[in-house]
Amino acid sequence: MTAACLPSPPALREDAVVAAIAALTASTAHPRVVLGIGDDAALWQPSRSHRSAISSDAFVEGVHFARALMTFEDLGWRAMAAAVSDLAAMGARPVLATIALGIPTAEHVAIEQLYRGLAAAAAAYGLAIVGGDLTRAPVVFLAVSVVGEVRSSNATRRAGGHPGAVLAVTGPLGAARAGLEVAGNASLRELPSADAALAAFRRPQARCAEGRFLAASRNVEAMMDVSDGLSTDLARLCRASDCGAAIEQVPVAPSARAIAAAQGSDADAFALGGGEDFELLVAVRPRAFDYLAGRFRARFGRPLLRIGTLRAAAEGITLLRDGRCEPLAASGWDHFAP
Amino acid sequence: MTAACLPSPPALREDAVVAAIAALTASTAHPRVVLGIGDDAALWQPSRSHRSAISSDAFVEGVHFARALMTFEDLGWRAMAAAVSDLAAMGARPVLATIALGIPTAEHVAIEQLYRGLAAAAAAYGLAIVGGDLTRAPVVFLAVSVVGEVRSSNATRRAGGHPGAVLAVTGPLGAARAGLEVAGNASLRELPSADAALAAFRRPQARCAEGRFLAASRNVEAMMDVSDGLSTDLARLCRASDCGAAIEQVPVAPSARAIAAAQGSDADAFALGGGEDFELLVAVRPRAFDYLAGRFRARFGRPLLRIGTLRAAAEGITLLRDGRCEPLAASGWDHFAP
Repeated sequence: MTAACLPSPPALREDAVVAAIAALTASTAHPRVVLGIGDDAALWQPSRSHRSAISSDAFVEGVHFARALMTFEDLGWRAMAAAVSDLAAMGARPVLATIALGIPTAEHVAIEQLYRGLAAAAAAYGLAIVGGDLTRAPVVFLAVSVVGEVRSSNATRRAGGHPGAVLAVTGPLGAARAGLEVAGNASLRELPSADAALAAFRRPQARCAEGRFLAASRNVEAMMDVSDGLSTDLARLCRASDCGAAIEQVPVAPSARAIAAAQGSDADAFALGGGEDFELLVAVRPRAFDYLAGRFRARFGRPLLRIGTLRAAAEGITLLRDGRCEPLAASGWDHFAP
Repeated sequence: MTAACLPSPPALREDAVVAAIAALTASTAHPRVVLGIGDDAALWQPSRSHRSAISSDAFVEGVHFARALMTFEDLGWRAMAAAVSDLAAMGARPVLATIALGIPTAEHVAIEQLYRGLAAAAAAYGLAIVGGDLTRAPVVFLAVSVVGEVRSSNATRRAGGHPGAVLAVTGPLGAARAGLEVAGNASLRELPSADAALAAFRRPQARCAEGRFLAASRNVEAMMDVSDGLSTDLARLCRASDCGAAIEQVPVAPSARAIAAAQGSDADAFALGGGEDFELLVAVRPRAFDYLAGRFRARFGRPLLRIGTLRAAAEGITLLRDGRCEPLAASGWDHFAP
């Protein structure tokens, strides 16, 4: 937490590609678009008082999922929840989704199962599936686009955090990563935590109500969802807000602790690098944190978990571990890591 | 054109799958959504006076395109034009696009070329590329979602056509299909029409201005874009409007005629089954057709091409050929044809 700590790690390769894409598309612009590439969702202005938010997520067989580890129904749920989570991260209320589906042959059972999962999640988050495209493809892929709406004063971005802000997450992390371990290793399924971990992996929850609640507070400076692992996503929020961060504690889900202990692996690594927990990460004005956390607990029956504070960018991103402050490297998912 | 003509062919397998999907997702609904699965684009109501339209299109290597036949820059243009064409078909003005891109490795050159093409088309049609997703995938795929806006009184659907309406298209057909032949056969490239056909295949034009003009007319009863071939798309408009149709003439692009003649193939088949011409197909109130066609010519410098009339559903879909009326089978693209 001092100058002895290293600066934050360089951008991920994937982030570098996204930055190149942002440059290539900068020439495209529309007066109604108020936020483009680089946040959880983009924002535009369909009329004076409204903002709409849009986000697209892709899921590819063999990359994001394997048929051996989850059913097509789970895949459908998970894909929808992941897409909706990007709206939650802006404080937007979901309205609709479109689905582009590639599939090797017209496997009616697979298509039906997939859509059952997609429709169940859509119903849970209150959005309509309104269209899409259906095509042959050598492997199954799914591209989910979601649209939501948010009051212009509430839309909350990754940028906006200031040094000193309290960093917090809406729930403990690592359970989805633990569930992936359970899904791939039958010997772990007898553990009492196995079901909770599997559920977190196969049926993750997008924090829509929490996102709208937090976005409506003027004391929330910045927000995003934790989809690629806390270490990776925190670095993104810090870059967008031009800040560093000092993480004091990482809230690890009980099921992640139990599965990691049974495997002899590091539960903190599940929480820092695992991703797909879809909890929200917020930067909150320090004086308002206790008040906001109290209201959050009253509303949702769960604590808003303090994990650290934003710092000046020059201080980098650090993690307090065993009483020592270490630089925190991004250990989350990178599609184009060397 | 009489009872001697057969009824229209059964729905495509792809259409049957889409119908099953519509049933599975019927439980998802949102009060703001005014048109869901089954048209060129879906419509929702972000505020009282506005309608927004959304459509998603997927493109898969080896299914929709081959690297040998077009550059990645052409692919980007074509994918964006195809997606925008669905907005044009509703009479909507494009606002933004998101891109989900799957690619085997971080092929920077390919990604850059693709985005150059996407950005060029986005600039041509006045929409912004605002986000998306980037993932590894075993083959290149691209899912483009586009959002546009339209006055609620102007949004024009596939449904709404009545028997007696004049059917017309915004331009001659078959050039894109001829261009595919030229791209795959070097011996055709010396023909004078080769460049025009290749351009239609690699850089198709979405008829945005034409779509807005036609949708603003109360005399246009129904509209869609011709993306899968006139025979296939006409059957869709007829099903949505609960009509049959009698096609009297098929306007074939000069380049399609020339390439077909050089190959000894049937130019009409290019126009009826080729697809990807992205002209608009409209059903116009019969008394207003001449007036509308005159205004169309004055505005765009090209004729609105009359191809036939809508009929009662029981009369099926027929084509007048060599003075004889034949049933017209859907010969266009079906992803899941047996």
